Amino acid sequence: MVTLEHIHQAHERIRPYVHQTPVLTSQAINRMVDADLHFKCENLQKVGAFKARGAMNAVLLLDDDTARRGVVTHSSGNHAQALAYAAKLRSIPCTIVMPNNAPAVKQDAVREYGAEVVLCEATLASRLATMEQIVETTGAHPVPPYNDERVIAGQGTLALELLEQVPSLEVVMAPIGGGGLMSGIATAVRGMRPDTRIIGAEPEIAADALESMHTGVLQPPANTFTIADGLRTGLGEITFAHLQAADVEILTASEEAIREATYRIMERLKVVIEPSAAVTLAVLLEHPGIVRGRTVGIVLCGGNIDIRRLAI
Amino acid sequence: MVTLEHIHQAHERIRPYVHQTPVLTSQAINRMVDADLHFKCENLQKVGAFKARGAMNAVLLLDDDTARRGVVTHSSGNHAQALAYAAKLRSIPCTIVMPNNAPAVKQDAVREYGAEVVLCEATLASRLATMEQIVETTGAHPVPPYNDERVIAGQGTLALELLEQVPSLEVVMAPIGGGGLMSGIATAVRGMRPDTRIIGAEPEIAADALESMHTGVLQPPANTFTIADGLRTGLGEITFAHLQAADVEILTASEEAIREATYRIMERLKVVIEPSAAVTLAVLLEHPGIVRGRTVGIVLCGGNIDIRRLAI
Repeated sequence: MVTLEHIHQAHERIRPYVHQTPVLTSQAINRMVDADLHFKCENLQKVGAFKARGAMNAVLLLDDDTARRGVVTHSSGNHAQALAYAAKLRSIPCTIVMPNNAPAVKQDAVREYGAEVVLCEATLASRLATMEQIVETTGAHPVPPYNDERVIAGQGTLALELLEQVPSLEVVMAPIGGGGLMSGIATAVRGMRPDTRIIGAEPEIAADALESMHTGVLQPPANTFTIADGLRTGLGEITFAHLQAADVEILTASEEAIREATYRIMERLKVVIEPSAAVTLAVLLEHPGIVRGRTVGIVLCGGNIDIRRLAI
Repeated sequence: MVTLEHIHQAHERIRPYVHQTPVLTSQAINRMVDADLHFKCENLQKVGAFKARGAMNAVLLLDDDTARRGVVTHSSGNHAQALAYAAKLRSIPCTIVMPNNAPAVKQDAVREYGAEVVLCEATLASRLATMEQIVETTGAHPVPPYNDERVIAGQGTLALELLEQVPSLEVVMAPIGGGGLMSGIATAVRGMRPDTRIIGAEPEIAADALESMHTGVLQPPANTFTIADGLRTGLGEITFAHLQAADVEILTASEEAIREATYRIMERLKVVIEPSAAVTLAVLLEHPGIVRGRTVGIVLCGGNIDIRRLAI
């Protein structure tokens, strides 16, 4: 299990390579939900998402012999870019396995960091088999996107910053997909401020984490097409254990509320976010009064959306 | 004429009511133009634009008797919201004259700050007559959007911050519409660091400031529909004098480059900007090498764009 001490160490380790992201507020949004919200802008993080923290921590923890053989992961999302970024900083090879239907723009994004893209069939079996083959032939070290203690410790570092930036924090909210982000945050916050209320936000149509927490049994991903595309994955065994240990509360939001919250955040905070980053505010819009009068920290997890669909 | 001293005083005066906005960088954008760019994010300023600074300074400078009778301006843009915001903070009445074809969302935005909206015909003559009438009947004090020394001094305060945030600055760039922003910046920068290169950016199809500087005669606005809608106005006599005194260089960009630069900034910096804020980067995209190897400060003037046109 990841401890607060691991997260402090990770913070020292990755600090030179990631941004201490700013916290933004909006009086207009505060009035909408009758609370004092502080948005931690991980969309302004390196590679546009908190994922830079976890990947950086995992890569820096490798011993030189392992590192030399490179790292590998399967992802077409933010973790792919994050790992490519971290590998480039350490000047080691990086291979990203992507399904052959991954958009060219996502392939190019990781190539820009010097990573190699290996395409596979768009099935989980093919991804795993392709990755396995790369590991066997190159000796590359796999860095999973969330179900990994080094990654979890890295993500948790943002909570240390948030607690310093907003000392009066009473509630912390973050979205839950694979659970790496929330595992890190919850571990840090429970360690530093045990009484803080910790709320994970999930799309109503992909509420597998909620179901896992309620039943006490790890559920598979919902396999639906929520617009919060970063949250389509399910928990892993390691992240599930951390969410249980930290007693994380989970609330859900409808697709319509997620869409509306995405617009409101971009309108009011003037930052670009992906819909996954708006599920937290969507929860507050649909459960008015749930944090009434409280000081709330909300993690904007990422900003990777196709902005060219905006007609100018 | 506004002096550096006025700008320092304005900074002390408005500091409690405006944000010290962050400066963001992107290695990907730096590679595009082969320079070290630092984006001063006035789109993250109160009301989403630098205009909060100038309006705040003007309102705080009013004596109590004048202030009590309120303030008035004609604008359907960012200055309207800025004046409404400043008036609300001083708890004085504010009237905004808008053309009757102004979008409801812009009318609502100023009403949210408690200002009264008075509609008029969509001609300059009608705006001025309507404003004149309000001044006569209520004794309200007019606060112009840019051709005003108090406003110019307020806008200049952002340059003081920028010079502190990026001490190695060699070039400063900002868009030019009415010229209030650039008048303040150029005055501050010439005063603090005389050797700095100061570049104003203008749409090619609305290059009246360029023409004014070249001919030495104040030109009327170009009356075209550049997508950089905040830059459709022409210089005023006061702003023109400041641009001349500070020897501001002016470069232009095509509509296509402005559109492309708008996307690139939102993609890479993950902040929401209006097209007017992208004319500076557009200039660099169209004049490759013009600031090669230099440390450049670029002002992102505002973020008020209709983000709901983005399909999610």
